[in-house]
Amino acid sequence: MATNALRYDPRDFSALTFHDATPRFRAGSDTPRAYLERCIETITAREPVVKAFVVINEAGARAAADASTTRWKAGQPLSAIDGMPVAIKDLLETRDMPTELGCEAYRGNFPKRDNAAVWALRQAGAVVFGKTVTAELGGTQPGPTTNPWDPARTPGGSSAGSAAAIAARMVPAALGTQVGGSIIRPAAYCGNVALKPTMGGINRGERQTTSMSTTGVHAGSIEDMWQVAVEIARRAGGDPGRPGLFGPPTPPIAVKPERVMVMETEGWAELDMATRSAFEAFLENLRRAGVTLLHRGDHPWIEALEQAIANGRAICNAITNWENRWYQRNLVDQHPQGVSARLKATLARAEAMGVEDYRAALLQRATAQQCHAAVAPLADAAIMLSCPGPAPLWSGDVPGQPLAPRPTGDFVFNAPSSMLFAPAVTLPRLSVGALPVGVQLMGQPHEDARMTAYARWMLSDVAPVAVT
Amino acid sequence: MATNALRYDPRDFSALTFHDATPRFRAGSDTPRAYLERCIETITAREPVVKAFVVINEAGARAAADASTTRWKAGQPLSAIDGMPVAIKDLLETRDMPTELGCEAYRGNFPKRDNAAVWALRQAGAVVFGKTVTAELGGTQPGPTTNPWDPARTPGGSSAGSAAAIAARMVPAALGTQVGGSIIRPAAYCGNVALKPTMGGINRGERQTTSMSTTGVHAGSIEDMWQVAVEIARRAGGDPGRPGLFGPPTPPIAVKPERVMVMETEGWAELDMATRSAFEAFLENLRRAGVTLLHRGDHPWIEALEQAIANGRAICNAITNWENRWYQRNLVDQHPQGVSARLKATLARAEAMGVEDYRAALLQRATAQQCHAAVAPLADAAIMLSCPGPAPLWSGDVPGQPLAPRPTGDFVFNAPSSMLFAPAVTLPRLSVGALPVGVQLMGQPHEDARMTAYARWMLSDVAPVAVT
Repeated sequence: MATNALRYDPRDFSALTFHDATPRFRAGSDTPRAYLERCIETITAREPVVKAFVVINEAGARAAADASTTRWKAGQPLSAIDGMPVAIKDLLETRDMPTELGCEAYRGNFPKRDNAAVWALRQAGAVVFGKTVTAELGGTQPGPTTNPWDPARTPGGSSAGSAAAIAARMVPAALGTQVGGSIIRPAAYCGNVALKPTMGGINRGERQTTSMSTTGVHAGSIEDMWQVAVEIARRAGGDPGRPGLFGPPTPPIAVKPERVMVMETEGWAELDMATRSAFEAFLENLRRAGVTLLHRGDHPWIEALEQAIANGRAICNAITNWENRWYQRNLVDQHPQGVSARLKATLARAEAMGVEDYRAALLQRATAQQCHAAVAPLADAAIMLSCPGPAPLWSGDVPGQPLAPRPTGDFVFNAPSSMLFAPAVTLPRLSVGALPVGVQLMGQPHEDARMTAYARWMLSDVAPVAVT
Repeated sequence: MATNALRYDPRDFSALTFHDATPRFRAGSDTPRAYLERCIETITAREPVVKAFVVINEAGARAAADASTTRWKAGQPLSAIDGMPVAIKDLLETRDMPTELGCEAYRGNFPKRDNAAVWALRQAGAVVFGKTVTAELGGTQPGPTTNPWDPARTPGGSSAGSAAAIAARMVPAALGTQVGGSIIRPAAYCGNVALKPTMGGINRGERQTTSMSTTGVHAGSIEDMWQVAVEIARRAGGDPGRPGLFGPPTPPIAVKPERVMVMETEGWAELDMATRSAFEAFLENLRRAGVTLLHRGDHPWIEALEQAIANGRAICNAITNWENRWYQRNLVDQHPQGVSARLKATLARAEAMGVEDYRAALLQRATAQQCHAAVAPLADAAIMLSCPGPAPLWSGDVPGQPLAPRPTGDFVFNAPSSMLFAPAVTLPRLSVGALPVGVQLMGQPHEDARMTAYARWMLSDVAPVAVT
């Protein structure tokens, strides 16, 4: 494994899948234990460069895989994901592995309890496999993970390790979390499918400190993505006060949308020409497949929504910085050397805010949500890029220089679904310069299954696009 | 201090106040340090029987009071509550005292950080004085606190120590928290005023695990109650995603409501005759003062609201039990001997629930909120009892017998404001058998200041009622 870039092409990359292995488990021609061993082999080969994991519990995973093997042999799996190795972003607590949140101040933190979603995975028979690298506290200070397609580039963040582990075919599914863009963007940079559910769709358990954070799923296939999400939700439900993810107990069948709304977002002006042309070529493929496309000029309500989210990054940052303020102040007071300069700078911005600044940002968010609700009758879904081009190069901050503003990439295309509490699915349908770029479907709240059905159709029936 | 009951009469009880001391601080005829020492004297006299506190930081409080004394002498107080001794319910974290949550499993827990509300109190110059007894994890397993009016009776719960500390004149204000009825009911049993704000009005900081929990204020006076709430909210805002408490920076002036809606709630059928006659006599006093009273028979929307909350206790319990499920399962797994049998029984009920049971309860709550919004044009406020009679006797569970169902009293009159996310203010306006019984005003969400203004008028202009 050299440090050279690999060539990504959505037309021939085949990610690791689990749903198609279970018939073999049932027939006895394969076992969850053997599946796990293949994952471990891949990790052994690629982890030295990719660095997706903080910790792996190999012994625990093997024991869980053996138990699953017995259940499948007896024809009594606990669920469709019984035996599936699932990696867990290291913000979420696991009873058998430390939870260090990508933060020096949490080094050695080992609460010995399972987050509600992790608990649900175990109840479903999944093999809770390892903890994946997160940017510090889910923010923007990167961990060591590299992009599996080019180690000189970021895998995105904050769910860096989960995204990279999928792209490197280490595991078929992994949990991530998103506040601003932490699921969709890294998935898009790595070439995964991923679901950022409707706000509150998957129970955040003990980690629910901000009003936009959402637990979601990275996967190599749309089938595994849905199955993991629904198996968690049917056991642990959604966030307190929310009804949780709705949808069928098995992956929704492919459905062709009739009308799709193309969202520019504030990212449009910043696009490089290659990425824009790739996206437009994909839209043209959609059109050829018979989908009607609407643009901001086609209806004043679409234009109103575009304007309501035109400052999305700033709105998301203001809300999240304020909400993290006391937690982070306590952390910095207790561990002045235990957090990054980048986090301290974010905290300083939060501490310059007042209640009225926060209220103003909340009102902008609520207004945008109203604008989003208004467009529901116009189109079946919104489509937009998942990231403003391929993963950027990243080799670390330069001592003596100002901190790089967005070392894990720009969340400009992710702020909308976050602030709208809307479900988003990213699809690996583009490559630009032989690197992955995701396309994103966004629906109204609680249309997670519907977006998954449209995504499945686009994966099967709409040709991907590769531009150089 | 014998264990005999004292006689409570709302016509002559004078609680400890702070707002009227600050002119003396400014004039130099009194100081925050002297005020604190008087509090400590009272505690020394009464704490052996009342048992309101888990821990007191006398040295820290004296240092803070001295600093406040200096500021007042210089004419530069940080706020109107600079120097006010405030007690903190032991669910909320404090950097200088342990936080044990009334739970054996948390014995010695000392996270050395301030909850957002506690941080705000310190920023305002308040003297963070001690931690008050809470029922276990804010639930129903009582701590050692006794009712200051009769040590054979419960002070209510879960904010038992905060309520009792006010009634015993130990401090002028204390923080409490409510999920079902944990602020309003103990305040009503002890003879305090208290504010359970609009859901999310005061930042819960790190403690925000359930969808109905709210931080609020117990006080000896309506002025101190409001001032504490607003000083916190202007510095730390509300819960993540919520705009926080609205209202003036000083206590709202007394306002007479024109029309008040009398709510029976599911508690009406369970009332003893003495409490019912006391409440009806108070309503008659309101009528004489020129307030129009509406009842459930007067408008179908009021009847619809009564019906929507008629099963309030069960709805609140279903929601809260489910939301605490994973947290409490982890706790019991880690500390099987560290929690009460009562808590284990609650967890067993939660574990018998499924996602659809939780969704059904959420829908009932949301429906009730719609019914509550519908009555907004009909009346300025709702009035109801704060508790179904005086504090019940409590001498502990009987070994070998089933656990007593509600050792800290019945939250039947508290479920409505909790599930409606509505602001509630309890007023010490009744005594029944020489024990306090509270009357409660409830408004639409964000009418905290309006309810406070009405409450202030009822305290000053409507005669209280004592029945034997």
